[in-house]
Amino acid sequence: MHTLTPELLTRAQFAPFGDVIDRRDVSPLVINGGRTQRYDDLAVIDLLGQDFRPRISLFLSKPVALPLEINALERHPLGSQAFMPLHSERFLVVVAPAGGAVDLSTVRAFITDGHQGVNYRAGTWHAVHAVLDQEGEFLVIDRAGPGANCDEQQVSLTVAL
Amino acid sequence: MHTLTPELLTRAQFAPFGDVIDRRDVSPLVINGGRTQRYDDLAVIDLLGQDFRPRISLFLSKPVALPLEINALERHPLGSQAFMPLHSERFLVVVAPAGGAVDLSTVRAFITDGHQGVNYRAGTWHAVHAVLDQEGEFLVIDRAGPGANCDEQQVSLTVAL
Repeated sequence: MHTLTPELLTRAQFAPFGDVIDRRDVSPLVINGGRTQRYDDLAVIDLLGQDFRPRISLFLSKPVALPLEINALERHPLGSQAFMPLHSERFLVVVAPAGGAVDLSTVRAFITDGHQGVNYRAGTWHAVHAVLDQEGEFLVIDRAGPGANCDEQQVSLTVAL
Repeated sequence: MHTLTPELLTRAQFAPFGDVIDRRDVSPLVINGGRTQRYDDLAVIDLLGQDFRPRISLFLSKPVALPLEINALERHPLGSQAFMPLHSERFLVVVAPAGGAVDLSTVRAFITDGHQGVNYRAGTWHAVHAVLDQEGEFLVIDRAGPGANCDEQQVSLTVAL
């Protein structure tokens, strides 16, 4: 069993896999007569294939605890998938680079800090949604449309502190 | 001065203007081996014109208090604009139907209940972002790209309880 220790999520460390949605290191535009600070374009929405549309959904998830066994990773070759917590939930992010099959030596685990969302680039391998501490509610922006947009690969991993 | 009393936001009342993003009256899919309930397709993202892309941003806004004077409404003819609160913030939504100039007799004001986001349909007239109670942080999904995508019309309105 391959064991991973999660790292704190940072934009730089996550760059090979997608975007961290976080305003704290971004310069805002000031709009609405000074009332609002606007932090634009925090994630790249990939939409591939045909007849696609971007889709807004909500995910309500039971929490996981560490150590966590992970039996599969999945990827969406035709679209990105963004997750933003709606109540400052921390969550676990387990990813491997897009490309061929998963190479266990390249899998990384991250823990968010409650201010962060993530956006998996199209093709990035990732574990299913894993919120920590409490039931979690997330806004999800991904691709809807025809085409085979979910591959799964069996793995044998444990994430432990 | 035209005075409006805000109504509690409901999906039915808001239907002429766009979507209420709320999972409470939607049947979920159960995914991730039972860990997650997925409430899909809660808003229609309008993207019109050319060379557009959907965009994910964060808005951080100072709160407003009622009675609130509103001096202008704006509309985005080329794209929808969705707002989802990240900390259960309540917010004020002032809208008028898409079409020609604003007719003050058709303006409506709503107050959300903390579980709700809204998505303004392309062309729906609306007041700028107005969070209640506390500083608010919102995830925003709208259209980026060329084209004239913001019209403004002066109005003279007061929203009061």
